[in-house]
Amino acid sequence: MARVVDVVDIADPHDCRLDDFRDLNSIDRRPDLPTGKGLVIAEGVLVAQRMLASRFRPRALLGTDRRLTELLPDLTSPDAPDVPYYRVSAEVMAEVVGFHLNRGVLAAASRVPEPTVAELVAGARTIAVLEGVNDHENLGSIFRNGAGLGVDAVVFGSGCADPLYRRSVRVSMGHALLVPFARSADWPGDLAMLREQGFRLLAMTPDPRAELLSSAMATVRDEPLAVLVGAEGPGLSEQAMRASDMRVRIPMSRGTDSLNVATAAALAFYERIRLPG
Amino acid sequence: MARVVDVVDIADPHDCRLDDFRDLNSIDRRPDLPTGKGLVIAEGVLVAQRMLASRFRPRALLGTDRRLTELLPDLTSPDAPDVPYYRVSAEVMAEVVGFHLNRGVLAAASRVPEPTVAELVAGARTIAVLEGVNDHENLGSIFRNGAGLGVDAVVFGSGCADPLYRRSVRVSMGHALLVPFARSADWPGDLAMLREQGFRLLAMTPDPRAELLSSAMATVRDEPLAVLVGAEGPGLSEQAMRASDMRVRIPMSRGTDSLNVATAAALAFYERIRLPG
Repeated sequence: MARVVDVVDIADPHDCRLDDFRDLNSIDRRPDLPTGKGLVIAEGVLVAQRMLASRFRPRALLGTDRRLTELLPDLTSPDAPDVPYYRVSAEVMAEVVGFHLNRGVLAAASRVPEPTVAELVAGARTIAVLEGVNDHENLGSIFRNGAGLGVDAVVFGSGCADPLYRRSVRVSMGHALLVPFARSADWPGDLAMLREQGFRLLAMTPDPRAELLSSAMATVRDEPLAVLVGAEGPGLSEQAMRASDMRVRIPMSRGTDSLNVATAAALAFYERIRLPG
Repeated sequence: MARVVDVVDIADPHDCRLDDFRDLNSIDRRPDLPTGKGLVIAEGVLVAQRMLASRFRPRALLGTDRRLTELLPDLTSPDAPDVPYYRVSAEVMAEVVGFHLNRGVLAAASRVPEPTVAELVAGARTIAVLEGVNDHENLGSIFRNGAGLGVDAVVFGSGCADPLYRRSVRVSMGHALLVPFARSADWPGDLAMLREQGFRLLAMTPDPRAELLSSAMATVRDEPLAVLVGAEGPGLSEQAMRASDMRVRIPMSRGTDSLNVATAAALAFYERIRLPG
């Protein structure tokens, strides 16, 4: 049976029911700060839809009437969560969040317990392992590329930014909410554990002495695979490189340096799935 | 013989010698507006270095003393252009450009005449052809990916943004100044011309009925190649698709939509060069 959506009209920007969405750009008060309220914020219709389909169940939505219409099918489906839609004008919305948000709708969810790395990778065939990736947009792009190119899960080594920060979720097109991930509690020790679990570890590097991506990938075709990438600039730590099976490079034109980390990762994911079957 | 650098200390932010760098974020006065002064602005040491090595010869640099030190080898090399370095404090720099620019140095060059598409592609083996790519960051990323992955030239069809806008140049890591490009004066007519010149045209699309990228690329291995990409969302126009030899898709996971346009282009460029020789 179709649900009835719990639409609540709010005209007062100071209404405390809107607190989950307040001051989104504030450095120390934003609701998606892990050390504060620790919420996850989805922005825009597409990302809100993906949140509704994810393990993050929204506790409230805030948006204009127009976006409510666009989200109605998602909010009235039989398995939709029972969640209020705070319907406001664009002006009230801007006053609550602190800036004009032209995507017109937000959803807020609590964080959920995260699996351990061992739990995460059980049964996975292709995973991405990140070290020192501290840029939210790059994190978001890695989730988007991974979701599109067959990555089952993402492991965060040391030095990575929060993948559930609003900007990361937005750039990921919501895939940061859908692709499962875990944070390593034992880095780089978890790399040895991954090898024991049967994963082959390919460490991406611009080093010209490394193996070519196409040849390296051919040697691991039928085995579980972990693609390791490090931050732009420093790249992977020597420790992480040593704990890997192979150092792997993308063939680059002379006179150019590394690609963006999310692009390099996408090329490795693609090399894994470029042939059918 | 090593050159002497023409260092000019300036303390007055209103000095008219700094006009090439004034109000960089202004919508209607920024110096890199094609309909205004039409300059090209390089930002940061790396991009300024690439401008110095490019066909765009800077007419002035503006920066702090620290960045002057970093650029000295480039400015004193025998083939360096004869260009003043306006040395200022970070405060004066912020007042001139209109915001705090932590890259600490800018270089300004005049635009140069652009080749026709026919002139551009003579002798090229792999080119990128863009239609409707109106996002400066995506343009910049396409130049960066193209430079790293063997693209000889870029053709702009209709609806593309200015590749020489500061943000595009910055995101390209300066490669927008190094990879040659031309704007089509006859679109989509130039696509027929490219085919007459011997190029095989691969049109990227998320359409599941399109040819798989790996199989499509195998059929054009020894021929000059043009990779066509359209804007995220609408993609290539039907006209551009029809003028191409093949419609080509990246194998995507179920439940995901298209990749970012620069990422999709990078996968096509990579498929072209993934094997040695």
